[in-house]
Amino acid sequence: MTTPSRRDLANAIRFLAIDAVQAANSGHPGMPMGMADIAEVLWNDFLSHNPADPKWFNRDRFILSNGHGSMLQYALLHLAGYDLPIEELKRFRQLHSRTPGHPENFETPGVETTTGPLGQGLANAVGMALAEKILAQRFNREGHDIVDHRTWVFMGDGCLMEGISHEVASLAGTWGLGKLVAFWDDNKISIDGNTDGWFTDDTAARFEAYGWRVIRKVNGHDPVEIKTAIETALKHDDKPTLICCRTTIGFGSPAKAGKESSHGAPLGKDEVAATRAALEWPYAEFEIPQDIYAGWRNRDHAGAQAQWQQAFDAYAAQFPAEAAELKRRIAGELPADFSAQADAYLAKLQADGQTIASRKASQMAIETFAPLLPELIGGSADLAHSNLTLWKASKSVASNDPNANYVYYGVREFGMSAISNGLNLHGGFIPFDATFLVFSDYARNAVRMSALMGAHVIHVYTHDSIGLGEDGPTHQPVEHLASLRYIPHNDVWRPCDAVESAAAWKAAIERLDGPSCLVFSRQNLPHQPRDAQQVAQIARGGYVLRDSDGAPEVILLATGSEIGLATQAADALSAEGVKVRVVSMPSTDVFDRQPLDYRESVLPNAVRKRVAIEAGVSDFWRKYVGLDGDVVGIDRFGASAPAEALFPYFGFTVDRVVATVKKLG
Amino acid sequence: MTTPSRRDLANAIRFLAIDAVQAANSGHPGMPMGMADIAEVLWNDFLSHNPADPKWFNRDRFILSNGHGSMLQYALLHLAGYDLPIEELKRFRQLHSRTPGHPENFETPGVETTTGPLGQGLANAVGMALAEKILAQRFNREGHDIVDHRTWVFMGDGCLMEGISHEVASLAGTWGLGKLVAFWDDNKISIDGNTDGWFTDDTAARFEAYGWRVIRKVNGHDPVEIKTAIETALKHDDKPTLICCRTTIGFGSPAKAGKESSHGAPLGKDEVAATRAALEWPYAEFEIPQDIYAGWRNRDHAGAQAQWQQAFDAYAAQFPAEAAELKRRIAGELPADFSAQADAYLAKLQADGQTIASRKASQMAIETFAPLLPELIGGSADLAHSNLTLWKASKSVASNDPNANYVYYGVREFGMSAISNGLNLHGGFIPFDATFLVFSDYARNAVRMSALMGAHVIHVYTHDSIGLGEDGPTHQPVEHLASLRYIPHNDVWRPCDAVESAAAWKAAIERLDGPSCLVFSRQNLPHQPRDAQQVAQIARGGYVLRDSDGAPEVILLATGSEIGLATQAADALSAEGVKVRVVSMPSTDVFDRQPLDYRESVLPNAVRKRVAIEAGVSDFWRKYVGLDGDVVGIDRFGASAPAEALFPYFGFTVDRVVATVKKLG
Repeated sequence: MTTPSRRDLANAIRFLAIDAVQAANSGHPGMPMGMADIAEVLWNDFLSHNPADPKWFNRDRFILSNGHGSMLQYALLHLAGYDLPIEELKRFRQLHSRTPGHPENFETPGVETTTGPLGQGLANAVGMALAEKILAQRFNREGHDIVDHRTWVFMGDGCLMEGISHEVASLAGTWGLGKLVAFWDDNKISIDGNTDGWFTDDTAARFEAYGWRVIRKVNGHDPVEIKTAIETALKHDDKPTLICCRTTIGFGSPAKAGKESSHGAPLGKDEVAATRAALEWPYAEFEIPQDIYAGWRNRDHAGAQAQWQQAFDAYAAQFPAEAAELKRRIAGELPADFSAQADAYLAKLQADGQTIASRKASQMAIETFAPLLPELIGGSADLAHSNLTLWKASKSVASNDPNANYVYYGVREFGMSAISNGLNLHGGFIPFDATFLVFSDYARNAVRMSALMGAHVIHVYTHDSIGLGEDGPTHQPVEHLASLRYIPHNDVWRPCDAVESAAAWKAAIERLDGPSCLVFSRQNLPHQPRDAQQVAQIARGGYVLRDSDGAPEVILLATGSEIGLATQAADALSAEGVKVRVVSMPSTDVFDRQPLDYRESVLPNAVRKRVAIEAGVSDFWRKYVGLDGDVVGIDRFGASAPAEALFPYFGFTVDRVVATVKKLG
Repeated sequence: MTTPSRRDLANAIRFLAIDAVQAANSGHPGMPMGMADIAEVLWNDFLSHNPADPKWFNRDRFILSNGHGSMLQYALLHLAGYDLPIEELKRFRQLHSRTPGHPENFETPGVETTTGPLGQGLANAVGMALAEKILAQRFNREGHDIVDHRTWVFMGDGCLMEGISHEVASLAGTWGLGKLVAFWDDNKISIDGNTDGWFTDDTAARFEAYGWRVIRKVNGHDPVEIKTAIETALKHDDKPTLICCRTTIGFGSPAKAGKESSHGAPLGKDEVAATRAALEWPYAEFEIPQDIYAGWRNRDHAGAQAQWQQAFDAYAAQFPAEAAELKRRIAGELPADFSAQADAYLAKLQADGQTIASRKASQMAIETFAPLLPELIGGSADLAHSNLTLWKASKSVASNDPNANYVYYGVREFGMSAISNGLNLHGGFIPFDATFLVFSDYARNAVRMSALMGAHVIHVYTHDSIGLGEDGPTHQPVEHLASLRYIPHNDVWRPCDAVESAAAWKAAIERLDGPSCLVFSRQNLPHQPRDAQQVAQIARGGYVLRDSDGAPEVILLATGSEIGLATQAADALSAEGVKVRVVSMPSTDVFDRQPLDYRESVLPNAVRKRVAIEAGVSDFWRKYVGLDGDVVGIDRFGASAPAEALFPYFGFTVDRVVATVKKLG
């Protein structure tokens, strides 16, 4: 067996990518061909990981922010010996394969996050690097660096054009994330062609302006230059590093190298053959010779992990409480008594009967739950005192405090939520972030990614309707509740009082396999009476808050600030002898998952006189009220005025609700 | 009458802001107090406008990107003599006032765009400056600079933290928008406090990296320094200019200057008095002495406009066709024959009967309509060949071509759509932009702003479902159709074939007072037979595409790629003797606006066996199918596989539709 050259090792990536894209007749060969040499040096000389244990906690994180180059990552995982056999690469982009079009962390071992939506991989990586920094501050002890790994990012021009790259690169610089290293695939080509016409930034200067260390003009096809650049990056850990690599997209393809035609389509049979000739790669499709495999698998990863395990065991012997906490947090398990303690808090709140804004109730829940959950890490996009996200023990992550647990994100909603995803994916944290509900728009695709990945992330949205008042229609959400509910696997809660607010927080914390959006009011909301069973039923997403004597004739459904109105309207209707049930529906997502018999018990099919009330788009509620019911909602933009003026102006009055019920006949 | 000092003139802004916020007991005094001196110099010495004619076409555009400082703008408009009397300032933030919480261009004369969602004002301004540049290229002639104005932007730290500032500042640099001047209110305070903890960018270096001219360290309270800086900016017009102004938020308030407490709340009665004393402003609430008004109104704006009008008349005499076209475009009127020509094209398409992807049909519509509409300006976020947004006469706006009409936006969806808003608000353009439907998420709040402002903007979204195939769930929209439909005043179209695609384009072009989202398929869609009446009815948003003999027992509703499936299912059911109507519903928004009798004629209330079919979230359709109907939709994330595998996998089959109908009983 000969020793393959570095170029041979890199070419193995190239041809796996070329062949898989050709076999699928779909995909992106250009980027893997362009970044193969960088990847080869990074993975074979630097990356600390263990293909036999992709979940080893102290592994380096490798993030492919330019996720369309997924075959680069699959090739790397396969070559390095992860559980991703060649058969899976042959099934690239096919149904039920473990090699989907873009990397999906829930499908493929060794994939840390799901990428494709550009810029977010970098943001996730910033979150992971931040997680590492804070965990190290919290758990490491003199001579015991048990949390100590790097985060590596590949990214392309597309990631750098996206606004989110600005938000998170700025934060990474401010936080001095010295173990974060990003490689810019500077190939001057994006889908529309040569980037001269639309991407003329001096990216190196831009990142220096963020406080990064920038290594310029590295030949991304010269392993020596690449290696030197990485060694330079590793010499310091006070700042994140950007390594600017000049590369050729589609490197090796005689006809398509350096052209956008290599980006997003198979090279074509003839060009594949020509590339094989040009790169002197005599092997058949998907054939990797043994010496190439050997070249990719000659490092003792298991030994490295064993060494770390030994260090961890020593640490555990000396600091058993810390070790146990870290292990629990890594496993993503809640403290054993969390549920019981939370229930006790709910019972107390129900007894207290406070009338407060639900955002205030949210802060009280944080204040109560945070001491139980050191893994809770909060933050807000420059609205801490409006979102009410600070609690007594909040400590900024910009500090070196071992208990740092709060992120001042600045006005960067999208970056914030994508960083939250990264914090959770890293392990050790349940992140929550916050902004006004209307600005969930800015973060929207990161919320979608939370849901797609099943990340345990909590998005707090306050100022949830026209009830925010004077700031006007730019700040008043209308369609946002419905739109967030429609994101698959996303649980939205809009509580009606302090008790439901705490129950929503409990549900979000206990929902280990997906995100929750907690939506709170700016204004005070009246306390609602409940018995213990009703308090328990909040967790089912919808329940009978108040029932009629005997079978109901009319059902009023509402959420949040409109529950108060619903109960007042029920009073008025009851006074006229109408039998009215009021259903509180803080989470339609959760309610819809309940068994049919429970749903039927809350909303009996036979009762068709139904009116839903919510200060948001009405059509969302047609699924509960049907063609024979009606909705008191808001189907236009709001207005600037005090909330007390707006609710009647938009028809949120007892008279209107009563009239709407009566119109049903 | 004495001549007031510049500081006195600026203090008039300060106290109008202070008093209005105090009267409203709500608002943001800190920014107007901080930027008053800059505003005073700009408006009194440089801004070319005419308070008596806020719509004068060649006026400078003034944009308040930090829109929470709305009282600065209202004070300026009032002091400069716009139709905004002091009574309106006294009604700041009250229902039906013309002084809403954030500036709204549809409420207040002289407000160019609606701001508040941070960063977007800057983006709108970039769009306006681009509009000016292209119109000047198109219409100006030697010695006739009839399009020649500047665009001025105020922005704060928040705007600069937002990712969109990166996207649009980068484009402004690339395009060399030399008549764009932005003032950075560098006060080192954001809502959470001193920005040291979350905003450490070297902003000046960052903007230089974008190719801007940067004027550093201007004392934003020294009129001489401000004036010099502006004069420097005006000396060149090859690059946009950033003027970095060091200011003190809440300037003049003894207790709150320089503190976040001055940002978003009234100063309080005592502090208002203390500020009056400190700034030596002896006047009562809302009192502005005559000499101050005189100081604000001593320029001959009407004369300047008259001079321009004279120049325009001379131009019109020499270039009557160009002048007529410009006037038509400024007025936002379509060519008189557009509707007839579009109808002829629809008839031709119906006769042709092509089976093509609707994105291809969209491109054909652009190719057909663009020659009729020189005001059409297209673009895509680096997906021109996927969105199919280029047409034969496309010419990049990065060129100096007089017919420049196409924007290569790069991978910048949010900036793109906010720039589109600016292009339209400027006047002279109907912009369309494009990306994959799933990435409408990135641009979402700009789409909302299109709708709120009633901007005539067309958002093109291709790859509209799991039908995009192999790229997988990160790229497959599920909730997006419903979510876009829920934005008030936004029209969404999802056409089922080439004819509906062209009809959707026609509707979007003719909808002068609001945006449209046109949603197209990647894959081929079969042509549907229609008579002339049906072709005309497409414009009603929903219509009977195919009816049963006699009254229908079952109604199938569908859109886009699911119309083909609906008609096949109708065939199968008809073969079994079931009377089935197929309703095509390309735009639910438009259909919902039709008179009740038309809607009843399409969806008779008595027919309750209804099944809707759409490759998107099912619950949206409950409003049409009610509690007794059903939906064949998709309520989970997609998967990576060829489209032909995905549709059956997700249950989009004739068998499933037929079974769903039969289950209705």
